[in-house]
Amino acid sequence: MKIKKVHQWICLLLIILAPITQATEKKFRWKMVTTWPPHFPIFQIGVEKFAKDIEDMSNGRLKIKVSAGGELVPALQTFDAVSQGLVQMGHGSAYYWAGKIPAAQFMSAVPFGMTAKGMNAWFYKGGGLKLWRDLYQPFGVIPFPAGNSGVQMGGWFKKKINSLEDLKGLKMRIPGLGGKVLSKAGVATKLLAVGEIYTALERGNIDATEFVGPFHDQRLGLYRAAKYYYYPGWHEPGAVMELIVNKKAWQSLPKDLQKIVEIATRALNQWMYNEFEGLNIKALRELTQQYKVEVLPFPDDVIKELKRLTVETLEEESAKDAKFKQVYEAFKAFQADHDAWNAIADEAYSKALAK
Amino acid sequence: MKIKKVHQWICLLLIILAPITQATEKKFRWKMVTTWPPHFPIFQIGVEKFAKDIEDMSNGRLKIKVSAGGELVPALQTFDAVSQGLVQMGHGSAYYWAGKIPAAQFMSAVPFGMTAKGMNAWFYKGGGLKLWRDLYQPFGVIPFPAGNSGVQMGGWFKKKINSLEDLKGLKMRIPGLGGKVLSKAGVATKLLAVGEIYTALERGNIDATEFVGPFHDQRLGLYRAAKYYYYPGWHEPGAVMELIVNKKAWQSLPKDLQKIVEIATRALNQWMYNEFEGLNIKALRELTQQYKVEVLPFPDDVIKELKRLTVETLEEESAKDAKFKQVYEAFKAFQADHDAWNAIADEAYSKALAK
Repeated sequence: MKIKKVHQWICLLLIILAPITQATEKKFRWKMVTTWPPHFPIFQIGVEKFAKDIEDMSNGRLKIKVSAGGELVPALQTFDAVSQGLVQMGHGSAYYWAGKIPAAQFMSAVPFGMTAKGMNAWFYKGGGLKLWRDLYQPFGVIPFPAGNSGVQMGGWFKKKINSLEDLKGLKMRIPGLGGKVLSKAGVATKLLAVGEIYTALERGNIDATEFVGPFHDQRLGLYRAAKYYYYPGWHEPGAVMELIVNKKAWQSLPKDLQKIVEIATRALNQWMYNEFEGLNIKALRELTQQYKVEVLPFPDDVIKELKRLTVETLEEESAKDAKFKQVYEAFKAFQADHDAWNAIADEAYSKALAK
Repeated sequence: MKIKKVHQWICLLLIILAPITQATEKKFRWKMVTTWPPHFPIFQIGVEKFAKDIEDMSNGRLKIKVSAGGELVPALQTFDAVSQGLVQMGHGSAYYWAGKIPAAQFMSAVPFGMTAKGMNAWFYKGGGLKLWRDLYQPFGVIPFPAGNSGVQMGGWFKKKINSLEDLKGLKMRIPGLGGKVLSKAGVATKLLAVGEIYTALERGNIDATEFVGPFHDQRLGLYRAAKYYYYPGWHEPGAVMELIVNKKAWQSLPKDLQKIVEIATRALNQWMYNEFEGLNIKALRELTQQYKVEVLPFPDDVIKELKRLTVETLEEESAKDAKFKQVYEAFKAFQADHDAWNAIADEAYSKALAK
């Protein structure tokens, strides 16, 4: 065989082998939907960063196309879309699925529950994540903690709340368990989509509203429609966001890509919380200094009564649903220990700083 | 050319090509040293998990051999070993390099500084990480936040501390800026290695000692040598751990591996904090319920005076070192805003829970 012929064969072989060696590195093209509006700060932006991080870490082997709420499926169909395998991933918060899985509310926020550090300790060191995975297991969905709002605010009020009496007959936008608790206290609670809140408050169709915290509330312009800003956000002390993955899609990933996704969710969990803290710090200063918002604590009798009504509400829900009861018991036991430690750690330290 | 000959050529070519196609995926074998004793819970264990995660995420392309303090180089030579390129990575805490870089102390913990959430917000949203990278830049070292102890405890005391007077002449093991502050308050501060603390306290060579928090303190058996356990850990409200990488080694990594390391440090940062919280919660319960430890707050006059002496100390250090002053000013400004937000968020929420 002549040298020229050998060269021809080598060339031919290289052409044949090129796609084969590349194919050993299978590429995944995934779709992801979220419960957030397009470009929604921290939430949607964070999820897009998460997808980009995974693409970079995997050198393009796992590429995730992120759609905001309503772009591919309606926001509140995120869980179903992941469960049915219409998309491989979703991002939202577990209390959105309360209608389907009442106990899921403990995996995002319940009134007078735990703050971010307690929730993370519960998930990773107190059995919380296992309970969460058990809840989603029948739906073929795997959840990961993936974001935290920090302590939210109690809401915007057009009139001062001086006592429990002032809550009676008040029209307030507040969803979820917090809304149930306030209803018991005599508040006429309303459900309004985010886009309707400002106008309703400005026109007096509602007297009060909760939303998130200083950063998001400032962007929605709520300080222009109500003067009194109450704290603390007793109804959402540290709302957890979730990444959900379709189980079959998860199993189709090789081990290195699974680990990349898992570690990326932990980073996203912390990233969102850092963003919230950093941006809330700045927004609170602007709200109080530039916009002269009056920031006030709820009166003691209001807080005490809301706590009592929260226990009543959680016990009523427990009586209706065995899984809710099971998770509530586990959550309560962990929180009792957490609060005992917190009292001498972060809480005592905050008090020392203020002395 | 006969078919048989073609087969021979194909076989030969495959043998030649195999190592070439594999070589396109360059493998990195890195060494890492830490400041922690072998198997030291949370710290060394966390770093080993971090190395394993990176190996798994990179499918073995970046393999990091972790050595504990003293195994390859002495614990406190970790920074130098990374700076000189003897190893590619290190893990420790920035205040260990206070002799070389006084301002580095702000990157782990200063008395009456910020807790974990404030430190993370400062690093990632308040310019803190940029200041940190500038400090290490002359040494060819890149730092990443990679762990947090949470609020530490004030320490173990053989006698009750009823007032400022009781600190005078007290022999206490406490290093760093906290030690400088207590010296000003009349305490005879001592430096003791971890292995010496228990015996010194038990024999009365010291009257008091600080260490970490309930989990580590329980393991060291300190409750057997002193009865009173004081809170809060005013001197270390949220000690930050660091991952440090040799700059040239970092630049030698392809972009996907750089991103894997970066995201893994964020996950480690949160992982360690979760571990601390989860394990401290449990250890505190055991210390108080099983071992009948008396957990007490420092008296108000003690806290107030330690705060005053902390400001004095930080101003003295600022006068000695321009970079210390620069970082102190930035830290102070961020903390003022952080504390204002914290007062109506986490702090107010803790108070509401206790009502």
